[in-house]
Order: sequence, then C-alpha cells, then structure tokens
Amino acid sequence: MTQIENATKGIITTEVELVAKAEGISPKIISNNIATGRVVILKNNSRENVIPIGIGEGLKIKVNANIGTSLESSSNEEELEKVKIIESTGADALMDLSTGQNIDITREKILAASNLPLGTVPMYQAGKEAIDEKNDIATLSVEKIFSDIEKHCKSGVDFITVHCGVTRFVVSQVEKHRRTTGIVSRGGSMLAAWMKATGNENPLYEYYDRLLEIAHTYDVTLSLGDGLRPGCGNDAGDQPQVAETIILGELVKRARKSGVQAMIEGPGHVPIHKIESIIKSIKMLTDYAPLYVLGPLVTDIAPGYDHITSAIGGAMAGMYGADFLCYVTPAEHLNLPNVKDVREGIIAAKIAAHTVDIANGHIDSIQQDKLMSEARYSLDWQKQREYAIDKCVFNDIDKGNPCTMCGNYCSMKIYKNYF
Amino acid sequence: MTQIENATKGIITTEVELVAKAEGISPKIISNNIATGRVVILKNNSRENVIPIGIGEGLKIKVNANIGTSLESSSNEEELEKVKIIESTGADALMDLSTGQNIDITREKILAASNLPLGTVPMYQAGKEAIDEKNDIATLSVEKIFSDIEKHCKSGVDFITVHCGVTRFVVSQVEKHRRTTGIVSRGGSMLAAWMKATGNENPLYEYYDRLLEIAHTYDVTLSLGDGLRPGCGNDAGDQPQVAETIILGELVKRARKSGVQAMIEGPGHVPIHKIESIIKSIKMLTDYAPLYVLGPLVTDIAPGYDHITSAIGGAMAGMYGADFLCYVTPAEHLNLPNVKDVREGIIAAKIAAHTVDIANGHIDSIQQDKLMSEARYSLDWQKQREYAIDKCVFNDIDKGNPCTMCGNYCSMKIYKNYF
Repeated sequence: MTQIENATKGIITTEVELVAKAEGISPKIISNNIATGRVVILKNNSRENVIPIGIGEGLKIKVNANIGTSLESSSNEEELEKVKIIESTGADALMDLSTGQNIDITREKILAASNLPLGTVPMYQAGKEAIDEKNDIATLSVEKIFSDIEKHCKSGVDFITVHCGVTRFVVSQVEKHRRTTGIVSRGGSMLAAWMKATGNENPLYEYYDRLLEIAHTYDVTLSLGDGLRPGCGNDAGDQPQVAETIILGELVKRARKSGVQAMIEGPGHVPIHKIESIIKSIKMLTDYAPLYVLGPLVTDIAPGYDHITSAIGGAMAGMYGADFLCYVTPAEHLNLPNVKDVREGIIAAKIAAHTVDIANGHIDSIQQDKLMSEARYSLDWQKQREYAIDKCVFNDIDKGNPCTMCGNYCSMKIYKNYF
Repeated sequence: MTQIENATKGIITTEVELVAKAEGISPKIISNNIATGRVVILKNNSRENVIPIGIGEGLKIKVNANIGTSLESSSNEEELEKVKIIESTGADALMDLSTGQNIDITREKILAASNLPLGTVPMYQAGKEAIDEKNDIATLSVEKIFSDIEKHCKSGVDFITVHCGVTRFVVSQVEKHRRTTGIVSRGGSMLAAWMKATGNENPLYEYYDRLLEIAHTYDVTLSLGDGLRPGCGNDAGDQPQVAETIILGELVKRARKSGVQAMIEGPGHVPIHKIESIIKSIKMLTDYAPLYVLGPLVTDIAPGYDHITSAIGGAMAGMYGADFLCYVTPAEHLNLPNVKDVREGIIAAKIAAHTVDIANGHIDSIQQDKLMSEARYSLDWQKQREYAIDKCVFNDIDKGNPCTMCGNYCSMKIYKNYF
C-alpha cells in the first residue's frame, strides 16, 4: 500500500512517524493531510538509504538542489562533489537533471552517495537520446518515454517531474497569446515539439493511468511539472500558464484517487506584485496540493545574482503558500553551476525557507533567531557561530573582539554600560 | 529659499527640473509632492558638485551605500576606492559613517570625489570625540553636538541622520518592555546613554528648532533617525519602536512647517509577516514622509549573507511604501565592509529596488526586463550584457554558444525549431 492508501485507512506508517518526529507535529495530523493530498512524503518504497521528508501544509518549507551533468560540462566526479556539498550545506532533497553521457550510471552513483530524497526528469533522458541519435525529437516513441519512467522509478528515485499538463490545448494557448520567451521548460519544450511534429496528444496526459500505475508500484511522488511556466516576468500569470494549471488540478485529483502522491510545480519568473495572486491561484486550482516552486525570480536582469532574485521570490511565494523551494544558483542563465554556485544557491534558498518558517510560526525557527540575537547582544561569537546558517563565515573572525565595524562606539557596548 | 519653500510658492527650481527629467515625471507633480513633504530632494544649497536626487512618492526607489573608516580598520584611500565602486556600480547616494582618525578630512575627500548626494551622522563625530577624550559619553556638551552638525552642513553634506526621536519617554519604553537586543543604533545608544547619565532630555529634541535653523540655512534634508529600530526580528514593531515613530511623525510636521525637508528612517530587522503592517504603520504615523529603510533584514541567522536577507526585506518594504533602501553588505554583523562587500551590497539592494520599480509600474524598468528577456530568447549574449544589472558576469562567457547548461537540449532552441 502507498502512503496515501495507508493514510486513507488511518494507518500510521514508519515514514509518517519519522516525518512527524522531524517536524514536531503529531503523526495523526500528518497522516490526515496525506490522505487529503495536502502533504506528500518523498520516499520510493524500494529505496533503503533514504530519509523520508514531508512537504506541504503545516510543515517546514523544504529546499531542493538541482545537479546533473551536461554534454558540455561536468563529470560524475564533479556531480558527486556537489552531492557532498548539498548534504553538508543542508538541502532537504536533490534532483539529478543529467543530460551528459551515461545518465543511468550518474543516477546510480548519486542514489548510492546520498540519503536525501532524489528526483529526476525521465523525459530528459528519453528526449536527449532521440535528439542525439536522430537529431529529431519527433522520432521519440511513447514506449521509450514510459520505459525510461519505469527505469527511473525502479532504480529508486523518490519523485519524478512529469510534464503531463502540456496538452495540445495548453500549447495552443502559447501560439494564441504572444509570449516573450515561449516555452522555457526543457521537458515541456520537448513534449510540445513532439506533439507539433506528430500531431498526437501529450502521451503523459493521454496515458496518465499508465503513469499512475508505475508511480503506484514504487510509491514515487509525481511532481506535476509546469512546462508552461513563465520564462520572464512579462509572461507571468498568462493564459498558457493558467490553462496548464487547470489541467494539473485535474491530474492531481486523479493521482490522489489512484493512491498516488502528487505535488505541483510552479514558476519561474514572477514580478513581486504578481506573486500573491499567482501563488494563491495555483493553490486553489490544484486543490491545495503541495507546491514546488523554481524561484520565482522577481526580475530578469540579474544574471549572476539569480540566487538573490529567487530568494526574494521564494520568501514571498512561501508566505503565500508555496511549500518546497527549488534553489536557483548564481550561475542560472549563464552556466552549469559549479560546486561553489551550488553552495551559494542552497544557502540563499535556505534563508528564504527559514524566513517563511518564522512567518508560519514554527517555534524552533523563531527560537533560532532569538538565540542568535541574544548571542549577538552578548557579543558571544562562539554562540553566534552555533546558530548561524553558515558557520564558515566565522572562521576568519578573531576570537577576542572581532567586529571591526564600530569598535568602542558599538551601540550594544554603550547601551549596556549605561542601562 | 529652500526646496520646500519654493515648492509651496509654486516655483519650479532647477533641482526639481533635473529630478523631473531623471524620473520622467512632470516638474509640477514633483514640486507639489515636495510642498506636501511626500518627496524630498537631496542637495545642500552650498554644494556645487552634486547631482540632486528625488526620493519619495511616485519616484523610483533609490539605493544608498554606507562607507566610512573605523579606528580598527580602513584608511581614506580604501574609502575613496569604495566611492569609485559606488559610482560605477550605480548607487544613488552614499553616507560617510567614519569614526576613524580625522573624520573631517575623510568627509572633505569624499565630498570632492563624488557627485552623489552625501549623508553623514554628525552625532558619531561628537560622541566619538567624547568617548576618545574622556571615555564617557556623558561629558559631551550640547554645544559640541550642534557645532558638529553645523560643521557637517557647512562642509556641503546633503542629508544628515539626526536621532531626534530618542526622547526620555521613548527610552523609558525600552526599559519597560524587555527587548532582546536593546538599542542597536549607534547614534541612538549614544544619546540614550547621555540622557541616562545627565538626566537631561535629548538635545536634538529639546532644541529641535535650532536644528531646523541650521538645516534651513543649507537646505540639508533631515533624515530622522530611528534610534530605537529593532535590532532583531523579535523586537520588530515593539512599543519603543512605535513610540519613537510617533515622535518622528510630530517632528516631520514641524520640519515641513519650517521649510525644512525631512525623511524618516525605518528598520532594521523585521520578519516577513510583519513587514506590511510595520511599513504601512510608519507611513501613516509620519504623514507619508519619504521612508528610508536599513534592510529590513528578514532573519537574524545569516551573517555573511545579510545582503540577501535585506534584499528580501527591501523588496517587500518597497512594495508596501518604503522609498529609499540603505544597502546592507555581506559583512554586516561581522566586519567593516571591504570594496568587494560594497559592490555586492549595492547590487543586491539595486535588485530589490528594481523589483519594486517594476511593481510600481515604472515603464522603463518593466521595459528593461522585457528587452533582457527578448535577448535571452534570441540567445543574444551581447544584448543580454547590455541590459544586465552587472555586465561583468558576461566577461567569462564565450561568444559563440556560451551557456553550458542545456546545450542541444535548450528549451528555447527546441521550441523555436518547431513553432
């Protein structure tokens, strides 16, 4: 039985207990939320070496880090270095988006190297191989798509992004309403191109029951990809995006009915004044399924700093209902991220997630800030290190009287001298 | 006549015309807003080499960069390097917060080196000298405070932070309501300590008319400092902060009546769920005076990354009414910032400001994002460089097919091949 089936029958699974303990919430509440689909637990039922995490209503905001080889850059060794950094910096999950040589081997190595839930986009592998072999995405067969999905699930992947909502109707909306940046999702563009070339419907939509069956076997969580997410602020909240969200809302209900966990992927690029309405609208249209956002990036003009543009967007999206933040690194829109970029991306996303946890009233998050502030007021640098999101920044600081900012004119020293 | 006096009489000054041109708004509207005090123009009437900037309602969000020596660190040479970086990175104003040797000389050099509006906190100099000479802030005389203020204004400074709102009543609120981090404003703590030791009222409040007279002479804008700003999320929006804001609201009205421009300084540290109410409340209590915020930092646990915590807070504060963002560098809470920190701080603050300009409907800000996105869609790297907030990030990128992220599986390439 899957998590959702157990929860529906009122059975508290080991995974629910682990998540409940990690979150400091009663297992009963978490189980109820899994039954309604407002919470998912990421764990493939065939995978041993994974610590399950919960995502959704009432839980802390989680952070995902994307890695993966490309043909132009990176090796398995470099990606495994990134896995280490991801674990030590404290992301909650990771995705392998490899499109380099030997994707299967890369994935196996990452699965063995980490006990964080792992996600993949099987369509990348299917699409890549069609492009590599025949230089034409249209040559891709439906069988290949589903066999790659099954292969990923069988190998132990805990969640998969599937762009089931990129239907013919949805793609027609892109053609009808002039978009600035077209389709910016790789999986989405592959499927749209395939449909355009073959005249067929999106197989992930047409044969969605087949997908549900595979996901059910391994209790893999479907991350219903937003192939039509806006690729720039100007496209945010437009007809194609909302049309796809409506389809995703239909699919999330079918997944729940089949005992399959599902979450929704969200934007993308969104200017700050549109974040509240777009996030709340996605939540309503998808019946409050856990929402996994990529950013959103609040401006398009800051390549090199998109960990910052997305930290702004992630914090605001979280405040309005997003549950899971995919990090964005400084390298986004420029290169494949290196190890340093991965670390910077995780820290920025964790800052955004933590600010939302405070806003949502998570006591230990609030307490961490209070303890840090008390340590700051006491000028206790060892304790500040303890509560800091990145302890490394204290490495350079002299122990005695380290801050060079105010010296004798330190407001805290002056105040404490007189009060 | 000062800007506010001219505006009240319907006279359009050269400075108003310059600001109107820079903002793309009619001089009449700006002049009207100066008359009501909702807009200020930073320019000392005795200073020649300064490009006046406007701050407040309807105008673009401006960014300030703080520099200055401390006894522990930095030299005039290093601070002048920072001035160069501030100009080239595109901050709108700067403040010299020096507390090192020979403050007057540092200030003169900075004034000569830059044509951005310069702000200072004269109280730092007065307080520093009392602490250096007698090791006791209580020995500071009222005459010394006012003579330092007059000296700064006479030297050409365009705006000064004056902590006039730190009254005996306000300080009593700090003692009454247990705060986690006491008083974290240097000027505020100096004045509070002075009042506690002498038993006297804050001279900047008691002799506010004398301050107004000096400011009027030079048309220096008063930046009414928030000496009681929260130094951590836990203190945000507490009784001392709001009590001081009420006093600042009284003082801003008195300034306007005397023909003196005034803006309000705001927090500080504020968790994201409190930003809307705190910013809107400050705006209401201070009759919609231009609001100059330091951050706000949305969490306390990220030393080394406070340019990010404050970019999140700055964007949200701007969305709810803040007009002027003081940058925060990665070095905040750790060291005096170096040249690299200054650059990072400015870029993060400019990102926040730009996102607000988009939200506020400034056409050229929206257009910049659209042009960048069109260049991105065309894979035109030269044009992307043109619209980027930091052009340097493109220096390393190969011209031919530079992005190593997706290669042949680039969503934009696939999409354009088929549609």
